[in-house]
Amino acid sequence: MIGSEDGNGGVDRGYRDTQFVDGPVRPPATGDVPPLPTPRSVVEGPIPLPPAESVPLSVICTVERHLDEILASVPQPDPIELAVLDAQGLLCAEEVVSQRALPAFDQAALDGYAVRAEDVAGARLSAPVPLAVVGESVAGAGTPASIGPGLAFRVSAGAMLPVGADVVVPGVWTDQGRVRVEVLAGPPAGGYVRRTGDDVAPGDPAVQVGTPIGPAQISLLAAVGRERVLVRPRPRIAVLCAGTELVDVGTTPAPGQVVDVNSYALAAAARDAGAEAYRSGILPTDRRRLTEVLESQLLRSDLVLIAGTFAPGGLDMVQEVLAELGEMQFRQVTMHPGPVQGFGRLGRDRVPVICVPGEPVAALVAFEVFVRPAIRLMLGKRQLFRRTVQAVAGQALASPLGYRQYLHGTVMRHPDGGYVVEPVGDGTDALLARMARANCLIVVDEDVTDVAAGGLVTVMPLLLGG
Amino acid sequence: MIGSEDGNGGVDRGYRDTQFVDGPVRPPATGDVPPLPTPRSVVEGPIPLPPAESVPLSVICTVERHLDEILASVPQPDPIELAVLDAQGLLCAEEVVSQRALPAFDQAALDGYAVRAEDVAGARLSAPVPLAVVGESVAGAGTPASIGPGLAFRVSAGAMLPVGADVVVPGVWTDQGRVRVEVLAGPPAGGYVRRTGDDVAPGDPAVQVGTPIGPAQISLLAAVGRERVLVRPRPRIAVLCAGTELVDVGTTPAPGQVVDVNSYALAAAARDAGAEAYRSGILPTDRRRLTEVLESQLLRSDLVLIAGTFAPGGLDMVQEVLAELGEMQFRQVTMHPGPVQGFGRLGRDRVPVICVPGEPVAALVAFEVFVRPAIRLMLGKRQLFRRTVQAVAGQALASPLGYRQYLHGTVMRHPDGGYVVEPVGDGTDALLARMARANCLIVVDEDVTDVAAGGLVTVMPLLLGG
Repeated sequence: MIGSEDGNGGVDRGYRDTQFVDGPVRPPATGDVPPLPTPRSVVEGPIPLPPAESVPLSVICTVERHLDEILASVPQPDPIELAVLDAQGLLCAEEVVSQRALPAFDQAALDGYAVRAEDVAGARLSAPVPLAVVGESVAGAGTPASIGPGLAFRVSAGAMLPVGADVVVPGVWTDQGRVRVEVLAGPPAGGYVRRTGDDVAPGDPAVQVGTPIGPAQISLLAAVGRERVLVRPRPRIAVLCAGTELVDVGTTPAPGQVVDVNSYALAAAARDAGAEAYRSGILPTDRRRLTEVLESQLLRSDLVLIAGTFAPGGLDMVQEVLAELGEMQFRQVTMHPGPVQGFGRLGRDRVPVICVPGEPVAALVAFEVFVRPAIRLMLGKRQLFRRTVQAVAGQALASPLGYRQYLHGTVMRHPDGGYVVEPVGDGTDALLARMARANCLIVVDEDVTDVAAGGLVTVMPLLLGG
Repeated sequence: MIGSEDGNGGVDRGYRDTQFVDGPVRPPATGDVPPLPTPRSVVEGPIPLPPAESVPLSVICTVERHLDEILASVPQPDPIELAVLDAQGLLCAEEVVSQRALPAFDQAALDGYAVRAEDVAGARLSAPVPLAVVGESVAGAGTPASIGPGLAFRVSAGAMLPVGADVVVPGVWTDQGRVRVEVLAGPPAGGYVRRTGDDVAPGDPAVQVGTPIGPAQISLLAAVGRERVLVRPRPRIAVLCAGTELVDVGTTPAPGQVVDVNSYALAAAARDAGAEAYRSGILPTDRRRLTEVLESQLLRSDLVLIAGTFAPGGLDMVQEVLAELGEMQFRQVTMHPGPVQGFGRLGRDRVPVICVPGEPVAALVAFEVFVRPAIRLMLGKRQLFRRTVQAVAGQALASPLGYRQYLHGTVMRHPDGGYVVEPVGDGTDALLARMARANCLIVVDEDVTDVAAGGLVTVMPLLLGG
């Protein structure tokens, strides 16, 4: 919770070992593929497991491996120049060097009297030093006045310091006279004076490459005269969904039909992660139109995100058309919910395409696990992953061997310290209304099948921001 | 760091005792006004204090009192209806009741075979149950099929459950036959079936008043068929600055002139806090034009924010014009930096106007202390204040008696636990380049004058979000 989410000062590890992209990458852990369970033992567990031998090994992979392939493949969009206010929240992509000094001129730091330090060095309450007030200067354009020994110039904060003065006596240390002033105490030389270049000297770097631009950086950029700044842009993400059962939200679904919620939810999640998201809605079911829509989205996007119920086999028309457009792979990833995940790089520009499950809860989980880190990488963020905490499980949790399980839950601080987490619902099925009550994902590792009530689990709080 | 910043699950106290608006309000603590310090003792301290008797008591007030007056006066803009995607990050202002059942029909939760539970109850690896596959159903519009005893229907996830079936046998628990299937295990009745209304029943509340709308809520809203939703709107805030020395950022300042940084920095900060910020720039110096600009901003804004160097006396033309437009008060607030703060309610609609100091660092501190909580209140957020942590001071800090001091600093986790904070710079002057390196504000209370190195201080991390 310290500093920005970019983790300038962050020392918390993200959930992954490979917190930074250039960090170590785990070898594909094919040994993680679960052995064929006996059916009876599975009936007691929440999720049926596919038998390992029924799926070709090439399409089974760990969460880490799928994620690493995505992160290794997403491009970093070229920096663009934006008006400073539009740069907010983005990372600076240039070394901004000030051409100016800040302050641009010697000035009073507060309201008072500009004087010569030596004139007031001996001033004290019992022995005030009287000076003649020879003028008054307020903030604004002009040429500096000058003073000599025994003289004072009334100044307001930000006003130019008269030539000859080297200190400002705060008004409250005087009798505040207008013609003649009695100084009760003298600051040391240079006191309450802001010297030219004290803040920034010409040639000083003001904002550096990789700095997140917030109000303080915008303040500094404006001060050095910058109206525009080069930044890492928000990636443009097209959000689509596939499924013959889908109808748009404005339509009343016929029996068997389902409203498209994924293009809305994933567009919102992508925007929340920092992308410029374009919700393109339901993919056409006509093959020629489908190809046209996909090709046009590939031309205008940095990443294409598609939600749909796909199978590693690839019999679906959408999967066929994707395969025609480039290298696209669907895999059984050892995670629950939503084992089937897809990734490819399609079209002339090899634009990354991520396919997530069509089931809405699984779609948002896959977004958290695979898409959000990819967006943050495209934005240039150092911290790709949400911070995690260890929390005490308020109830026992079951998880299938060999699968990393993500459960929506509510996490709270415990009165005695630390955190307590409860899954929403019974943990066996993922429902929208329950998900909407959650504030975290509980992550149960591949090699854990049971978490006792009172045991520790990893929790990923889902911060809303804003 | 748990849950949303709205603190649904938040139990951390904000910095103030009065965390919620309807909480207890401290009486104005006029006793906090510092006694006149002897000038000599002040020379050693970082900030000169105004002598208490030189300022009328009515214009001196504590941070708490000024803040309470602002929070008690800001209006809550009327809810507006927005497209669900535009509602992201805002609070729901209606009880969204579902007219639909979710799911809308009984369906398979996964790929497998819809059967009668009693037919497969005895199935085991050693004694598989054979069934005749009489059809196949995929997700999509249609009318449900039906099955009888001894029959199975191949179904994919999301497909309608045939009439007569009450369980779905996962494909991986069978031999995956297409004409005849051998079932190796039977789930209990209802297994892997999503029943109509399991998620949301017609008449169920889907999203409640006051819920922050994020991707999960957008998912649920779309699922119940909502294209639009009533929300608490972003307050419209006009950001202006006043000062005859100011020139716009595109201009090269003449000697004595200063670039307007505050309208940029404050607009960015207001946007970051959730407002719809309009940067209107430098106020005209012509009195008639000045009145026109202020009147027109009052008509179109929920709050007007002005940065400028004002005095509690009110001799400035901007202060005079503000006073003509309504009740406006400038005060010496017992805080550093930037003691002079203003607040009023002006124009026909008594629009709140907050004036912050013109010095850019003091302006952003005043924004944090007074404006950000007001914006969050207008948004309907429960958690108005940033969370704070206690941190060990890496070096000694001095603070004037009777003033609450806000110092920019960098806070880091300590390897041995807890936090360590260092001020940026020497703590005696506030400079833009230093502020841009900070990730927190250090808050030193009114009654503390010295914090030893190693002592505990309150720290307010400034999260960037995004």
